[in-house]
Amino acid sequence: MKSHTSYLTFHARNRMEFINITGEVQEKVQDSGVREGLCLVNAMHITASVFINDDEPGLHQDYKDWLERLAPHDPSRYRHNRTGEDNGDAHHKRQIMGREVVVAVTEGKLDFGPWEQIFYGEFDGRRPKRVMVKIIGE
Amino acid sequence: MKSHTSYLTFHARNRMEFINITGEVQEKVQDSGVREGLCLVNAMHITASVFINDDEPGLHQDYKDWLERLAPHDPSRYRHNRTGEDNGDAHHKRQIMGREVVVAVTEGKLDFGPWEQIFYGEFDGRRPKRVMVKIIGE
Amino acid sequence: MKSHTSYLTFHARNRMEFINITGEVQEKVQDSGVREGLCLVNAMHITASVFINDDEPGLHQDYKDWLERLAPHDPSRYRHNRTGEDNGDAHHKRQIMGREVVVAVTEGKLDFGPWEQIFYGEFDGRRPKRVMVKIIGE
Repeated sequence: MKSHTSYLTFHARNRMEFINITGEVQEKVQDSGVREGLCLVNAMHITASVFINDDEPGLHQDYKDWLERLAPHDPSRYRHNRTGEDNGDAHHKRQIMGREVVVAVTEGKLDFGPWEQIFYGEFDGRRPKRVMVKIIGE
Repeated sequence: MKSHTSYLTFHARNRMEFINITGEVQEKVQDSGVREGLCLVNAMHITASVFINDDEPGLHQDYKDWLERLAPHDPSRYRHNRTGEDNGDAHHKRQIMGREVVVAVTEGKLDFGPWEQIFYGEFDGRRPKRVMVKIIGE
Repeated sequence: MKSHTSYLTFHARNRMEFINITGEVQEKVQDSGVREGLCLVNAMHITASVFINDDEPGLHQDYKDWLERLAPHDPSRYRHNRTGEDNGDAHHKRQIMGREVVVAVTEGKLDFGPWEQIFYGEFDGRRPKRVMVKIIGE
């Protein structure tokens, strides 16, 4: 069994931002030499997500509006912010969008449907953040 | 290490529909010959989910009503639909229910709790859609 | 390839409760002897979650309040409860928080970002419940 471990670093300029990381993850799959296996991609921060959906700017704005309705930023709403933080909302938004994805690797590539793209979803940006990519297989 | 790759195809008659795929996934586990490992099951379309819950029709109707409240179908609500689509809501419902499940394989079987069943969740049906099943282990 | 299977049992005293299980999962990783691989942790019950976030009591209370708004307990709201259950809400809360996490194992340890902690999230407690831990790798 082969395994391959790598970390990607992102610095989102906005509080909420979605970054397409499909190309970088595919490069790591190539580096790994794994032909058949699984690829885990997860946010290493608890106010961020990794998710798979469409690379369409209108949809991304829809997601931002929807997440803001489901978990508004307003810092006064969250007990968590009494610790001195102002990112209580980000911990909630991340739960909706998820922490991680697991993608099949088949014949050395991410085995994707027609529109699947991997995104890093930042909900408390303006600091460098890390994403883990772990590939195992043969 | 063994790996086994397969694709299931579904054609939901309704826009929103949940299909129990546990038996088909279990067959793929048997086909794989894997006794100990992991089984990834994911929607290959970004308006669909794979999730694990109860096979109880009342609960499924509850889920449909709840998802419709959280992300109503009304096409005018979504920027995404300006691209000519009418499925903006389906991209949101899928994020709530999730893209994938990873299930342990133990002694050649899906290692499930008492009520766990795997469902394909369609939110933009009436076209053929694919689910990926990837099994790795020994 | 090595594989290691174990089950943790919890008995939450309250209907809704979050239990930090990071230490117990890390012990299973050590028991497994796996240095590089993947660790699946999932609820075996369909009214419970396993999720990764911060171990901060204010945040946990925020989550409980938020989940109660998104899917109120009131048994009369759910068709599922016509089967004699009163836990329809728990099946919904679990979908928001997720069934499982997959964590990378690197150099024999859970490969975590600075604040990541694994929680068992109970939404229909007061009965013993099980969590599965499956580790594969080398």
